[in-house]
Amino acid sequence: MDFEHACALEVTYVPEDWSGRLEIESVLDGTVENTLVERYRELAGDHLDLLRTAALAPDSVLLEMVTNQSAIRVAMAARTTLWHDGEPAAAERRLVDAHAVVGHRLTLEVHRSETVTLEKVVTLFTGRDRAIAEPASEAARWLPRLGRVDDLVERHVRAWGHLWERFHVDMERESHMLRILRLDLLHLLQSVSPNSVDLDVGVPARGLHGEAYRGHILWDELFIFPVLNLRLPLLTRSLIRYRYRRLPEARAAAREAGYAGAMFPWQSGSNGEEESQRLHLNPASRRWIPDPTRRQRHVGIAIAYNVWHYYQVTADQEFLVNYGAEMLLEIARFWASIACYDHTRGRYVIRGVMGPDEFHSGYPGRDQEGIDNNAYTNVMASWVLQRAMEALDLIPAQKRHELLGKMNLHPKELGRWANIAHKLFVPFHDGVISQFEGYEDLEELDWDRYRATYGDIRRLDRILEAENDTVNRYKASKQADALMLFYLLSADELRELFAQLGYELDRELIPRTIHYYLDRTSHGSTLSAVVHAWVLARSERERALHFLTEALEADVADIQGGTTPEAIHLAAMAGSVDLFQRCFSGLETRQDQLLLNPYWPESLGVMEFSIRYREHPLTLRIHGDSAEVLASPGMQRPIEVACRGEVVELEPGARVSFPLLVPRADQQAVSGDPRPARPTVPGPPGRLAPP
Amino acid sequence: MDFEHACALEVTYVPEDWSGRLEIESVLDGTVENTLVERYRELAGDHLDLLRTAALAPDSVLLEMVTNQSAIRVAMAARTTLWHDGEPAAAERRLVDAHAVVGHRLTLEVHRSETVTLEKVVTLFTGRDRAIAEPASEAARWLPRLGRVDDLVERHVRAWGHLWERFHVDMERESHMLRILRLDLLHLLQSVSPNSVDLDVGVPARGLHGEAYRGHILWDELFIFPVLNLRLPLLTRSLIRYRYRRLPEARAAAREAGYAGAMFPWQSGSNGEEESQRLHLNPASRRWIPDPTRRQRHVGIAIAYNVWHYYQVTADQEFLVNYGAEMLLEIARFWASIACYDHTRGRYVIRGVMGPDEFHSGYPGRDQEGIDNNAYTNVMASWVLQRAMEALDLIPAQKRHELLGKMNLHPKELGRWANIAHKLFVPFHDGVISQFEGYEDLEELDWDRYRATYGDIRRLDRILEAENDTVNRYKASKQADALMLFYLLSADELRELFAQLGYELDRELIPRTIHYYLDRTSHGSTLSAVVHAWVLARSERERALHFLTEALEADVADIQGGTTPEAIHLAAMAGSVDLFQRCFSGLETRQDQLLLNPYWPESLGVMEFSIRYREHPLTLRIHGDSAEVLASPGMQRPIEVACRGEVVELEPGARVSFPLLVPRADQQAVSGDPRPARPTVPGPPGRLAPP
Repeated sequence: MDFEHACALEVTYVPEDWSGRLEIESVLDGTVENTLVERYRELAGDHLDLLRTAALAPDSVLLEMVTNQSAIRVAMAARTTLWHDGEPAAAERRLVDAHAVVGHRLTLEVHRSETVTLEKVVTLFTGRDRAIAEPASEAARWLPRLGRVDDLVERHVRAWGHLWERFHVDMERESHMLRILRLDLLHLLQSVSPNSVDLDVGVPARGLHGEAYRGHILWDELFIFPVLNLRLPLLTRSLIRYRYRRLPEARAAAREAGYAGAMFPWQSGSNGEEESQRLHLNPASRRWIPDPTRRQRHVGIAIAYNVWHYYQVTADQEFLVNYGAEMLLEIARFWASIACYDHTRGRYVIRGVMGPDEFHSGYPGRDQEGIDNNAYTNVMASWVLQRAMEALDLIPAQKRHELLGKMNLHPKELGRWANIAHKLFVPFHDGVISQFEGYEDLEELDWDRYRATYGDIRRLDRILEAENDTVNRYKASKQADALMLFYLLSADELRELFAQLGYELDRELIPRTIHYYLDRTSHGSTLSAVVHAWVLARSERERALHFLTEALEADVADIQGGTTPEAIHLAAMAGSVDLFQRCFSGLETRQDQLLLNPYWPESLGVMEFSIRYREHPLTLRIHGDSAEVLASPGMQRPIEVACRGEVVELEPGARVSFPLLVPRADQQAVSGDPRPARPTVPGPPGRLAPP
Repeated sequence: MDFEHACALEVTYVPEDWSGRLEIESVLDGTVENTLVERYRELAGDHLDLLRTAALAPDSVLLEMVTNQSAIRVAMAARTTLWHDGEPAAAERRLVDAHAVVGHRLTLEVHRSETVTLEKVVTLFTGRDRAIAEPASEAARWLPRLGRVDDLVERHVRAWGHLWERFHVDMERESHMLRILRLDLLHLLQSVSPNSVDLDVGVPARGLHGEAYRGHILWDELFIFPVLNLRLPLLTRSLIRYRYRRLPEARAAAREAGYAGAMFPWQSGSNGEEESQRLHLNPASRRWIPDPTRRQRHVGIAIAYNVWHYYQVTADQEFLVNYGAEMLLEIARFWASIACYDHTRGRYVIRGVMGPDEFHSGYPGRDQEGIDNNAYTNVMASWVLQRAMEALDLIPAQKRHELLGKMNLHPKELGRWANIAHKLFVPFHDGVISQFEGYEDLEELDWDRYRATYGDIRRLDRILEAENDTVNRYKASKQADALMLFYLLSADELRELFAQLGYELDRELIPRTIHYYLDRTSHGSTLSAVVHAWVLARSERERALHFLTEALEADVADIQGGTTPEAIHLAAMAGSVDLFQRCFSGLETRQDQLLLNPYWPESLGVMEFSIRYREHPLTLRIHGDSAEVLASPGMQRPIEVACRGEVVELEPGARVSFPLLVPRADQQAVSGDPRPARPTVPGPPGRLAPP
């Protein structure tokens, strides 16, 4: 973590009850292939070609490979040393240099109970690294500069220590939950960290841990950035710029599909092209079936939401001016161009897309062509159009003028956007938001029968296809779709948005919609548990905790029965952390205030975590009956902290504690607001005490 | 300028008085070599190896090369089309595909007075580009996406238009000067622009225009960033991050030389290693002589100054926290480690370096080992140590704690820094600052005789070496050295700095020092004119204008007699612009104020230029007898503008005009302050008028 080009390994051998000859082979192996995902094994798995091997010094070797499609050079240099009692241990050393495997075979005499320690120190550079001449020469040049393993470990531990301070989380009672949360953060920071800020990388859906999704970038950032925004916003900024660099490709993709603006791909590859598969193997039927998931245009909504949210949390004006506003405008323009005016309805419609629920790729008899008027997509498209126009107002006139000129964006087009934003169609049926138009005409699935027959019905789509049926016929979702609206937007925002669209959200519509889809979802994605825990947190705590546990256990227990070995589920991991930090604590950052509205079960004891609010390091401590905020003594200005209507100015080094009036559960259950509500009942005055 | 991967060429053929067969060859040529600098021609000039050529379409070809040392792939794709009367012109087309040359030979019949237009559109990608899969596939993929030349030109012109708004400069009378200033800005923006923000590039001393210095990065940024900071600070930030990425290399270089902290190289290559030549050809003697210019450790001072200055102008806290503070601390640590305590003097000394004056690489009898106690280096080392400690106070406690931990920097070491900062030795002689210790013992040169004998004595070092003498024996400088202090720091800052070091600067010392070295400088660098114009601007306007003219003419007239064809002198170009914007207008940005103190000759008429002050676009209009500031109507807040003691709050869209009381020239001549003084005589109240 301290120096991203260094790897180190230490192995200590103790011949407990024998003496004799020990042979150790320490090599760099360029023959590794991608074989971890069973389903992919029939596809090409060899991605590396040998360029050269070399002996650099008596104890050091070099291996240089090149990726065979992207032509990226990858060079590693390794130094292997043996130690006994703090001194170099004598060993016979033979160079191993078979095709793409290079290193040493060390042979030595060992004696009973005398330890021998092998240290292997490796440097790694690629042609995509910055500040290099050429990867092989850098790997060779830096190897002798690295000290012994102890030194590297010390620096590694110190760098991790600094990260743990920023990502601090603690719990009084729930040591099992705590262990998983920390494991989640560990995996998150192994995938993206301060070391990736300067690289052109996104957040791979499955971390860097395995090969599922082949490193493609999907929408998972939506669940990951909230954790980073409040701790390492520099990293979020860098990850959003990864998307910004692919804006030209997204623009070209939109144009080639007949749209305007930027159409980001559902599965994004290194150059930002759409990499979603066109065929997908159903392991249940062994059939290759068409895969239309690329119709999930809503990925652009996630990107726009991330841009806006990053700006809201950090107030990073420079980012908005130079990157964010342009991204919002280009994504908004895409939504304006894909929306068509439906004269019979007097409203704009969006046809032929897929929602986050990947089960519905079309209608019975119109398979694979997408569904129409996905509520999540349409409502969020209106939101994106409005935020884009808001961003335009937030940036300086000169930059606005430049952007409008560059995009050839005229007031007339902006007028059309405003019109669309207010006239997008949203389908309803049976007093709930329809997942998409025509959902009500689908058949009800006999859930009990399928559960009884198959046990695990998460991948109902595959089960039905194997039965020569199609999930498109049924009211059945893989994961939260319409409910995503309640995950991303507060009830206040949502009511306002619907009002602007000319729909009135009655108080009961939200809980009704939640329950309607809860009964019709198979939770075939680990994200489903995160979203459902969130939307139920305020109204049905027990059920929310059930989903929270499921989200937490996703990879620890491999709850999907086989996907964890293919790689971790990074969004579920970060989403779990976010459930604690934002959902159960009710943490929000808006209007230059830090707002808290905890709904944390007293039974779980004290939860504590650290965040950075606009560069101010803070510690939050949530009890069942109170919420505390501790400001770092080094904080440079006081900040405003609010809890349920009470606002306190928090001085550097001070602490504020808000006693919580816990409303009765049944009152909450009918509130219909799955997100922290604006405080309405002011609590007793907060106390400011020295820390 | 709109799309960095696109190039376009249009050639129109008009057979004015004939008809017949026209043959045109349009190719991509991979056989280009570096041959522009005559002195380098005996060195390797071929840096490209062929990977492949291909025909992509009937009108399009691909050329893929790889650099033979850095292994960077470079791919270009070209589309050649012929047009007549807006329609494709019929032509016979033959593929040309000789070794590393690929394209088309087009043959067609042309008729008298009928024009035929050739359009060549090219895409260019390298393996160092971001958001790509692999350069050749990207070049091929993007080529068909590019429109015709007209379309590309329109977008190019619009992008340049936006840049020109930011870099606007105008003059009422001096159309010659104006033309050169705009030419300077053109060359600057062709070398670094918004298109280079996302690349890992520095500012090459000679632009991207030629091969002198082989693209190495020297200290020229010092003269260039002031122009960028006030117009495109995002670019400066990116260019400083180029240095930040090379901090690990600078740290290793310091360690390997026996020092601590970061020792940046005098000539920096792609991986940040020292690339200064060890031998240098003297064209006058045809001898290869040792080149110890790498001893110019003061390059680290320039980097630290740039970091600090960028922060001062932009108030970019995020930059300071994440990059700037660490750079300042590492550079400060180097100076603390190279400084030795001299017990006899009771002061710290810095031995064995070279100052900006590259003539003095040692003492007579101690050639090439550097000189001791270069005044510029020692004074600025004290300045760097103080700014590093100031930066540490400016960043949040958590980050400070992380940095101190990472650097293993303890209070004791910081205490030593403070001590060194107050006890560095500065040599004086004859009532002036000595360029370095022992300067007074050197012989006076017979300047008249050398001028009479050789005419151009700018490169006196080469002349003397050819005479078997050495410039090390003489009081003779190539360019401003001690005078750099007056260029970088205001008289107030300087007096404070010297006072902290325990030296009193009497009022006359500055002008005396200026004149002393003016008489002993050959101006062998184009930078010399910039610095001398600056330091004389307040005291001797006529002489300053002479140097200003020389700086402006440097490349237009190739005043060095032969260096311009090797490439432009980018620092002199930007430095010339800066003379207008900061020196003659007395523009400063500090303490959240925009300060003006113009000393602009009335005879030159009105000068006008645009800047951005913390994202506020402003236009400055300097008359001989008044100074105006116009705020853009879109500006988001009022700003404070001050001129000679008078402070005005400038509202968005408003204008302020300060009448100037011009002090008598002789009063100024003795002021001894080459930089804008703090206003002492308040002028009449400013007027706020609608624009």
